Amino acid sequence: MQRVSAEMPIGIFDSGIGGLTVMKEITRLLPEEDIIYLGDTARVPYGIRSPETVRKYSLENAYFLMSRGIKILVIACNTSSSVSLDLLSEKLPVPVTGVVGPGARAAASATKLKRVAVIGTETTINSRAYERAIKEIDDSISVTGVACPLFVPLIEEGWTEGEVVRLTAEKYLSPVRYNGVDCLVLGCTHYPIIKDVIEDAVKIRLIDSAAETAKEVRRVLKDAGMLRRSRADVSREFFVTDSPGKFVSAGERFLGRKILNISRINPEKTLQVYSG
Amino acid sequence: MQRVSAEMPIGIFDSGIGGLTVMKEITRLLPEEDIIYLGDTARVPYGIRSPETVRKYSLENAYFLMSRGIKILVIACNTSSSVSLDLLSEKLPVPVTGVVGPGARAAASATKLKRVAVIGTETTINSRAYERAIKEIDDSISVTGVACPLFVPLIEEGWTEGEVVRLTAEKYLSPVRYNGVDCLVLGCTHYPIIKDVIEDAVKIRLIDSAAETAKEVRRVLKDAGMLRRSRADVSREFFVTDSPGKFVSAGERFLGRKILNISRINPEKTLQVYSG
Repeated sequence: MQRVSAEMPIGIFDSGIGGLTVMKEITRLLPEEDIIYLGDTARVPYGIRSPETVRKYSLENAYFLMSRGIKILVIACNTSSSVSLDLLSEKLPVPVTGVVGPGARAAASATKLKRVAVIGTETTINSRAYERAIKEIDDSISVTGVACPLFVPLIEEGWTEGEVVRLTAEKYLSPVRYNGVDCLVLGCTHYPIIKDVIEDAVKIRLIDSAAETAKEVRRVLKDAGMLRRSRADVSREFFVTDSPGKFVSAGERFLGRKILNISRINPEKTLQVYSG
Repeated sequence: MQRVSAEMPIGIFDSGIGGLTVMKEITRLLPEEDIIYLGDTARVPYGIRSPETVRKYSLENAYFLMSRGIKILVIACNTSSSVSLDLLSEKLPVPVTGVVGPGARAAASATKLKRVAVIGTETTINSRAYERAIKEIDDSISVTGVACPLFVPLIEEGWTEGEVVRLTAEKYLSPVRYNGVDCLVLGCTHYPIIKDVIEDAVKIRLIDSAAETAKEVRRVLKDAGMLRRSRADVSREFFVTDSPGKFVSAGERFLGRKILNISRINPEKTLQVYSG
């Protein structure tokens, strides 16, 4: 294996385009870092799959990024972070950061009433990963999870305002509004796109894991002496597992900038290729 | 390869549970036939993927079913039928039936005004497969396609009535209502579940491919002398690529009967195993 160095890129993967909201925060905080992003668009969405299947796909994605030489892995997907962070941390020789830990820490310090709600995909909510992470910090905080499976398809369809998304948010979130929680974790990287709609439906403080995760990545790299010094020739490379067309058009909305350097790969093959 | 015989089962695959509406019609029409059904739940939905990826997954599914010994393959998925029927017909040594041809024939004979609309997933609509199939029968029929990507997630979430699905149907289908079409093809095997909502939004005749496909399967088997004679020991076997839990609970609603004999498989492996 290549020796890990500060000049290597940060590796990020997500099931699709959602993780670009995390990448956006990382590039904002660490503009001098090279980044490789993998979106597993041939097998998106992860949120409806079983934990074992999500772990298998996550490992394949991680091995692909390792085979390119990265200094840290960011799991920019709440579903994958919820069920495969331990596995990837154990298997990989570089630090691994998920989005659940940073989001949980932010929520634990924000709640005054010690009542937090978390919204996410079915697999994220069923995993209770946020609940465990928040209770590890402060056992007296109560955590309510609400799965909102229609938010991702609505956002991907571009229906981010109007009656349909508003009624959907009402239907999912009205129980949250009336049970005394004072902060809501957006436990899915797509959700910041409909932040206003969610805020209208709950009228409490929202926690966005993306910004918290970027701070965590900076801290981990700094502690390891692995921050890149120069700003010359910053590279941003994208990989997808299905054809890039839709990823590029929708992804630019998520990332807030052009997606240029993009290729298609087959992650199933990397398990055989990557030699650890 | 095993010799094909009338005693072999009918093989059916779909990206998930939708194809069970087709299986339901086949068992109604051909109750004496054994059936093997494969739902590719680890990679559902197909309707958002590129044609190449759908073809790859379809071929893997077909090879798995072939490896079990089937006498006919039914592609009970509109997306897969739209983009991979030719490929599978060419590769497999048994007859292959999709859902597009039967649906197209029914629409062509039902329309009086020679104006048909088709609704389906993005990949189905973009493929224009229904349009080609209808125009092959009668070139003077005009065909309008409308992609309705939110219908499948809504149905899978169980929101099959109420404001959200009604407004979504209105939004997708109001253009259809005002352009003089007199019949609408449900070009996705999920859609019969919200038939009433769709009917309310368009107020024209609906064509459901599932029943038409069952008739086609009977015709093909009859012509080949491959109908099974006895009704003793009829077997219904199910395979899925993710864990069976959700498939069983939602699937029984689609199929209208209990799902008992179910196993999980990895279809990526069959490409290496199946020897043609």
